[in-house]
Amino acid sequence: MTEIAVTGAAGRMGREVLAAAADREAIEVAFAVNRSPVDELISGVVIESSDNFAELLAEYEPDVVVDFTGPESALAYADACVEHGVALVTGTTGFDDDGLDALRAAAESTAVLKASNFSRGVAALRLAVQEATAALPDADIELTETHHNAKRDAPSGTAKTLLDDIEGVRDDLSERVHGREGEAPRSADEIGVHARRAGDIAGEHEVLLGGSNETLSLTHRAGDRSIFADGALDAAEWLAGREPGWYDFFEVIDDA
Amino acid sequence: MTEIAVTGAAGRMGREVLAAAADREAIEVAFAVNRSPVDELISGVVIESSDNFAELLAEYEPDVVVDFTGPESALAYADACVEHGVALVTGTTGFDDDGLDALRAAAESTAVLKASNFSRGVAALRLAVQEATAALPDADIELTETHHNAKRDAPSGTAKTLLDDIEGVRDDLSERVHGREGEAPRSADEIGVHARRAGDIAGEHEVLLGGSNETLSLTHRAGDRSIFADGALDAAEWLAGREPGWYDFFEVIDDA
Amino acid sequence: MTEIAVTGAAGRMGREVLAAAADREAIEVAFAVNRSPVDELISGVVIESSDNFAELLAEYEPDVVVDFTGPESALAYADACVEHGVALVTGTTGFDDDGLDALRAAAESTAVLKASNFSRGVAALRLAVQEATAALPDADIELTETHHNAKRDAPSGTAKTLLDDIEGVRDDLSERVHGREGEAPRSADEIGVHARRAGDIAGEHEVLLGGSNETLSLTHRAGDRSIFADGALDAAEWLAGREPGWYDFFEVIDDA
Amino acid sequence: MTEIAVTGAAGRMGREVLAAAADREAIEVAFAVNRSPVDELISGVVIESSDNFAELLAEYEPDVVVDFTGPESALAYADACVEHGVALVTGTTGFDDDGLDALRAAAESTAVLKASNFSRGVAALRLAVQEATAALPDADIELTETHHNAKRDAPSGTAKTLLDDIEGVRDDLSERVHGREGEAPRSADEIGVHARRAGDIAGEHEVLLGGSNETLSLTHRAGDRSIFADGALDAAEWLAGREPGWYDFFEVIDDA
Repeated sequence: MTEIAVTGAAGRMGREVLAAAADREAIEVAFAVNRSPVDELISGVVIESSDNFAELLAEYEPDVVVDFTGPESALAYADACVEHGVALVTGTTGFDDDGLDALRAAAESTAVLKASNFSRGVAALRLAVQEATAALPDADIELTETHHNAKRDAPSGTAKTLLDDIEGVRDDLSERVHGREGEAPRSADEIGVHARRAGDIAGEHEVLLGGSNETLSLTHRAGDRSIFADGALDAAEWLAGREPGWYDFFEVIDDA
Repeated sequence: MTEIAVTGAAGRMGREVLAAAADREAIEVAFAVNRSPVDELISGVVIESSDNFAELLAEYEPDVVVDFTGPESALAYADACVEHGVALVTGTTGFDDDGLDALRAAAESTAVLKASNFSRGVAALRLAVQEATAALPDADIELTETHHNAKRDAPSGTAKTLLDDIEGVRDDLSERVHGREGEAPRSADEIGVHARRAGDIAGEHEVLLGGSNETLSLTHRAGDRSIFADGALDAAEWLAGREPGWYDFFEVIDDA
Repeated sequence: MTEIAVTGAAGRMGREVLAAAADREAIEVAFAVNRSPVDELISGVVIESSDNFAELLAEYEPDVVVDFTGPESALAYADACVEHGVALVTGTTGFDDDGLDALRAAAESTAVLKASNFSRGVAALRLAVQEATAALPDADIELTETHHNAKRDAPSGTAKTLLDDIEGVRDDLSERVHGREGEAPRSADEIGVHARRAGDIAGEHEVLLGGSNETLSLTHRAGDRSIFADGALDAAEWLAGREPGWYDFFEVIDDA
Repeated sequence: MTEIAVTGAAGRMGREVLAAAADREAIEVAFAVNRSPVDELISGVVIESSDNFAELLAEYEPDVVVDFTGPESALAYADACVEHGVALVTGTTGFDDDGLDALRAAAESTAVLKASNFSRGVAALRLAVQEATAALPDADIELTETHHNAKRDAPSGTAKTLLDDIEGVRDDLSERVHGREGEAPRSADEIGVHARRAGDIAGEHEVLLGGSNETLSLTHRAGDRSIFADGALDAAEWLAGREPGWYDFFEVIDDA
């Protein structure tokens, strides 16, 4: 049994995590917090104020904190995790370089697993994209991601991870172009990045590789957000009890 | 037998038109011109200088001029067509409002058929998009077009035609957004427009309609540019001998 | 307020209908039945035995019965609807010709709306497919549908409806080919039909039109089954109080 | 300079190989043969009778034979290659087990490179599919290939290669199902295989992996058949002068 604490409990992903945890026998929710007050029960759990997070950690001693919030909140939770020796799974995105450094520093004192996407399918997509990119060194690459019309930031964190992966293989690609209009000739060092927003699409990512007289299209489609919550709980179960360190979701998948 | 004159003969589409005409018994190429001098024969035709276009029209008296050039050249050719009573099929794009007015004025004196795309499949796509847009009045719409990496302008003329069609059905959509980056919340009156450039893709257009818990994706893919030349020749055969007026490629298809 | 009775209440679609009805103010569930006994409450509704269906109709006098069951059950429910003057919305598929005749006979005495699919997006797809098929009279057509791995019948009812639509436009197409293996030359009067089964995909339908050097692909994707329940409830609200007759889901959409 | 002989010169792929060779400086066509007599020149090359193949080999001493014919012819050409010490690149498909054994036996005496597909993009697809299949061990897999309406056999040789690759990774998959109709429940050890035929599509292969609430779609599209001829010539250049042995197109790509 893995005991978890859930942050951002009333947020879109926090609710998914609590619902997924309620369905999973091997997970127990020790407590859940939210920054603004929440009157309702979510999946049968009382939501506490995040002001009391450190005391709640001390009182309940969960194995892992599961966090989908914002960069600032996530770093505050990471500090508390270090202080109380609790592991941290975080799907928060949007850290700047200082934020990432702080998170990596926390990983020297407790186990931290950060991922922009907890879907097995996206992990599989990343591997497929890396293989294909290496096999087609002259291809033009364009990334298209599609999400629901309420998503405010672009491109998605998963898109950025894919772009990092591609640039890791193709060091001749140095410019990310977000949309084209008017006179817009393509240069050889570009990756085109396209963020579509429509309806309530849970998330779709396509990497298009255009070669001489042929194209390769590698596409992942998420059915709904529950896959991300499920993956985060897989990560929490896997991370519980690990040594301090910086862990990757690929390791969770490799051990499955 | 329809006799045609071909402009922009050494250009990408001019070459396609000459090659397609060589394969078609019902079409004869009276002459072909190019703005810059061309030493080679193209599909067995000698290429004349466009400076002599008016005299060549007078000498050869073709039925139809087939033009894929730029807005300025196309208007000069249109003037000559009016003067000599020759019909005009033009696939030139990029006219400003004055240019379009001038072209429509020419259509009062001779038969003019202008299209941004001479593919039957694209015509079918336009009809399908109009039906679907009307049937899903609350859908979010995003258009994605994909072309070879040497295409300089964005979005394509065909994309603009599709956007005009969509806005004709949905008068609540007033803003075309070309790419999204950073904080970029979608407003209800947006159409997203995405121009991908990769490899040597002949042309792909997708209209995505995102509704509540469902999506509709309507996509046309061109195999190669020969379909546009074939359609332009269909239009030339159809236009030969018509009364002065402004004609549409849909009329060509309806009569096929 | 429209009062409905729900059949097949413990089935996959029955549960969706009850859940959707619980979220909708303008709908009240008078009662729900299931053929085999059900101990649990579903969305707060007690599930009665379908043996008592006729008495329950007499007692509660709902406006409309919403039915997603099997052909035999659906016809029995239709008889009871006729007897008690209750309208019927049915999404049941798989009727043979006699069954369809019986259902149409019931429509002479009460309002009946039958549809193989209650999604607005599928209705939009049907219209788009009919337009495109008419505009490309020489195209080869192939239909591909993709559903979750537990779906037992192939192709889907929606696929059959699309095939009927296509054959209604193209009377030269007379043979549906379900898969190809070995020596399998395509004849000009074929429509290829492909049923894919994978994961828990809610439902995807693609009509591919292949012409000379171009293709058109028209694709609908359902996010989850709730869209079908929502559409059925739209139909129920629309059908309540109508004259006896045979109604179509397109009429519901046109009035929306 | 690599000197090649081309078999099946008047066939669809033979013509492509001759056209591609005419465009390539590093390749010279020593001679070309065809089983049935051919009066015309193809890409400027006189076509000889295949009855004289052995004598022509002796006379011209090419470095490599490039063969796209049928299994029986290909084995006869392989024998002649062994006798005269000429390397063989073959894209012929449809060998039975005995045929494959004979071809492998030839590879003990001369260099033989056999591939079902000479596109770099398809090679990249194969690698991507293997990665993704390994990363999603529980996914349901369905393969869809789409080709022009004149293709007689199904599924394509490339599809079979992909299926072999998938089964190499997933030994729990043992049954290839070619189409589904009527009552057709999916079993866990199935791979669905779907062959679509429409228009003049050069070739499209999609591997769909359906997991829990997510899908991965890996798709290759060929622009036209010239990519296969180009790849075969790449292979011929690479194979010229190699030791006897059985070579793979991946080796050509890895050295590029």
